[in-house]
Amino acid sequence: MSTRKGQIKLGAFLMNTGHHVAAWRHPDAWSNNGLTFTHYRQLAQTAERAKFDMVFLADGVAVRRDSDREALSRSGQIVHFEPLTLLSALAAVTEHIGLVATASTTYNEPYHIARKFASLDYLSNGRAGWNVVTSASEAEAHNFNREKHMEHALRYERAREFLQVVTGLWDGWEDDAFIRDKESGLYFEPEKLHVLNHKGKHFSVRGPLNVARPPQGYPVIVQAGASDDGQDFAASTAEVVFTAQQTLAEAQAFYKGLKGRLATYGRSPEDLKIMPGVFPVIGKTEAEAKEKYDQLQNLIHPRVGLALLSGNLGGFDLSAYPLDGPLPDLPETNLNKSRQKLVTDLARRENLTIRQLYQAIAGARGHRTIWGTPEQIANQLEEWYTLDAADGFNIMPPYLPSGLDDFVDLVLPILRQRGLFRSEYEGQTLRENLGLPRPANQFSSITASA
Amino acid sequence: MSTRKGQIKLGAFLMNTGHHVAAWRHPDAWSNNGLTFTHYRQLAQTAERAKFDMVFLADGVAVRRDSDREALSRSGQIVHFEPLTLLSALAAVTEHIGLVATASTTYNEPYHIARKFASLDYLSNGRAGWNVVTSASEAEAHNFNREKHMEHALRYERAREFLQVVTGLWDGWEDDAFIRDKESGLYFEPEKLHVLNHKGKHFSVRGPLNVARPPQGYPVIVQAGASDDGQDFAASTAEVVFTAQQTLAEAQAFYKGLKGRLATYGRSPEDLKIMPGVFPVIGKTEAEAKEKYDQLQNLIHPRVGLALLSGNLGGFDLSAYPLDGPLPDLPETNLNKSRQKLVTDLARRENLTIRQLYQAIAGARGHRTIWGTPEQIANQLEEWYTLDAADGFNIMPPYLPSGLDDFVDLVLPILRQRGLFRSEYEGQTLRENLGLPRPANQFSSITASA
Repeated sequence: MSTRKGQIKLGAFLMNTGHHVAAWRHPDAWSNNGLTFTHYRQLAQTAERAKFDMVFLADGVAVRRDSDREALSRSGQIVHFEPLTLLSALAAVTEHIGLVATASTTYNEPYHIARKFASLDYLSNGRAGWNVVTSASEAEAHNFNREKHMEHALRYERAREFLQVVTGLWDGWEDDAFIRDKESGLYFEPEKLHVLNHKGKHFSVRGPLNVARPPQGYPVIVQAGASDDGQDFAASTAEVVFTAQQTLAEAQAFYKGLKGRLATYGRSPEDLKIMPGVFPVIGKTEAEAKEKYDQLQNLIHPRVGLALLSGNLGGFDLSAYPLDGPLPDLPETNLNKSRQKLVTDLARRENLTIRQLYQAIAGARGHRTIWGTPEQIANQLEEWYTLDAADGFNIMPPYLPSGLDDFVDLVLPILRQRGLFRSEYEGQTLRENLGLPRPANQFSSITASA
Repeated sequence: MSTRKGQIKLGAFLMNTGHHVAAWRHPDAWSNNGLTFTHYRQLAQTAERAKFDMVFLADGVAVRRDSDREALSRSGQIVHFEPLTLLSALAAVTEHIGLVATASTTYNEPYHIARKFASLDYLSNGRAGWNVVTSASEAEAHNFNREKHMEHALRYERAREFLQVVTGLWDGWEDDAFIRDKESGLYFEPEKLHVLNHKGKHFSVRGPLNVARPPQGYPVIVQAGASDDGQDFAASTAEVVFTAQQTLAEAQAFYKGLKGRLATYGRSPEDLKIMPGVFPVIGKTEAEAKEKYDQLQNLIHPRVGLALLSGNLGGFDLSAYPLDGPLPDLPETNLNKSRQKLVTDLARRENLTIRQLYQAIAGARGHRTIWGTPEQIANQLEEWYTLDAADGFNIMPPYLPSGLDDFVDLVLPILRQRGLFRSEYEGQTLRENLGLPRPANQFSSITASA
């Protein structure tokens, strides 16, 4: 059926109790998954058995929106493992699957990040990936000595320099620097150390790093920025882009646009894999899938739904209005204007009640929801892959563990049968499995030509 | 034989290839241990099988002394795992042993540290410990946007506030805050969240932490500062103190002095365990032990020995002098004057050659070296424990893995036979095994009395 060469790449995006806003309340969900290692171990081993390319973990350095404590106290996404520690533990109990952690360039120092990801790459024998984010919430600023979140352009400026420092530190030692010759007493060859001496606008970092060059050269660089700055940053440095796309046409346009930017940086289209998020609700029949989805939607506590809606409507408080009545006319605000218009238009166009409106925007948080039979879901993924809308997908199970199990047990066999997904890992490292080249060392090539 | 109640506490201080400066050159040493997880897994499992209280990892955020690249290239301590990632991985393959990582308050942010150690405490089911250091090298400053290392008193001032923020974040959630009631939809009890809102001289941190209160309340707080500031800081907050003591009399004085400071902070002597470092060289006979020690000493490459000596002599370069001749008269410098006098006096008093002098100060880096038969080593440990010079010891194997194996196989059975060391772990958490109380939550007690 497929004409496009190659196979679909897959991430297992594990979000605490699951991606749905009410996931933790589902009867089958592990409501304490966020801080229970044995659960994560099982999930990672399931994903590995199924030959996923990677486990993907989001992150933020704050509890968000705690001003509305009543709504917060009903959220299942509040407390959870810190990703780098969790993935290090998972590295010890898996052998093949990639381990991708999110870390912010706005609230970290490049020496720490270069070091920790290099360390994870050694712990896992070349399976680490770094999802580079610039952070997006004021709550994070307040935990790091700042009153306000750093302005968008400045964040990206800092992120670019941050990446430059981190890759410079990774390249500080040549791949074959450490000879460890007990006889002569030489531990490394002195000319294979390149001290960075970076002095820039945001950072002064001398180096060298106290970890050798990572097994993958660099851990795989992942990004998810959708803005023009974000896409340009991705085109220059990212190797995997995680993105939210709702329709085939939008996804194709994004795919074409981002791949088109690569040439500017001397890169080929296959040097960057585009993986939209997919939130699959799977039933043996279409009716069963719909029923499953409705069950989740009905578990959204009105306080949580209203808080979510309020966040999308410039902070307007809807708690005095009937849930099953229409959205009232709202005063215009300056907070997130375009989002407010989007949500208001949706309510008017589809004639939604307040409850229906928050249900519509809950769940997958802007990502593509597909509910249906395994066959229908496989068709959807195949279509996007074949028609150049995606190189793969970041699978976002609605609740855990069943949401992941269902995908593995019901959808993957169909993709495999169609030749669209691997039966065995192709390589040892994440980079090899994703079909990404191992980066050359920027300093040793200089040495070679000198 | 012993009259003192209780038993010796033991740490396995794992330093890359081993603690001796030439460890990696030893024929039995794993010269690539620093970045080989399977090696560390074996070492941690050996220590756990032997019922050690904890694995202890030192840390610094720089490669030190790389100005003398010729000497550096002969050191085995250059590249290694980052401790928090390594211990997280070890948490997944051990069940009982404590996991203590060093992290600096000078080059970190409290939110990250609170979070990562809380995460490690959950990953390990209550086995995490934090060795709090303020860092000591200019090289670290250069990797973190600074030209100079922060001045001593300021470092300690920052460290105190850092601890205040970190413990405040750990206490942000009461132990029983998370009820996760699927039926009612309440994930936590709103009144059991205490937002920190810290605004101090060095830090503004709002909180709350996105990890629940750690299983141990707080991970065990370890310190090693020997200065007056350092000891005072330890007396107010530390639960384990790692220290370098050479003689019984010195160790007893330190022990008495530090325990004596505890009352000022409303603490009992048993709330803080003092664990000097011990560098054991074990032979079946005294002669074999001496031979082993000499073998290690002779593996010190002269470039490494001279660089070490130079660092102890205000930077003076001795490379033009004969190794087996006497120490020349040196000009006085202003760098590390007291250290210079100590080393010069030692050379004069014992009439040492340059080679003998660097051998004398190499090896255990100021920690107590004991070479002898298993019986002799057990006697030494028993003496210090019984005569109130120590509550336990941080064992520093000269090279790995044999240095640890020898201690476990030869010395521990003797201590065990004498009733001085456990045969089984007493509790589940590191805190329980060390006999330390679980700290109360500073905020929930306020709530309770309100």
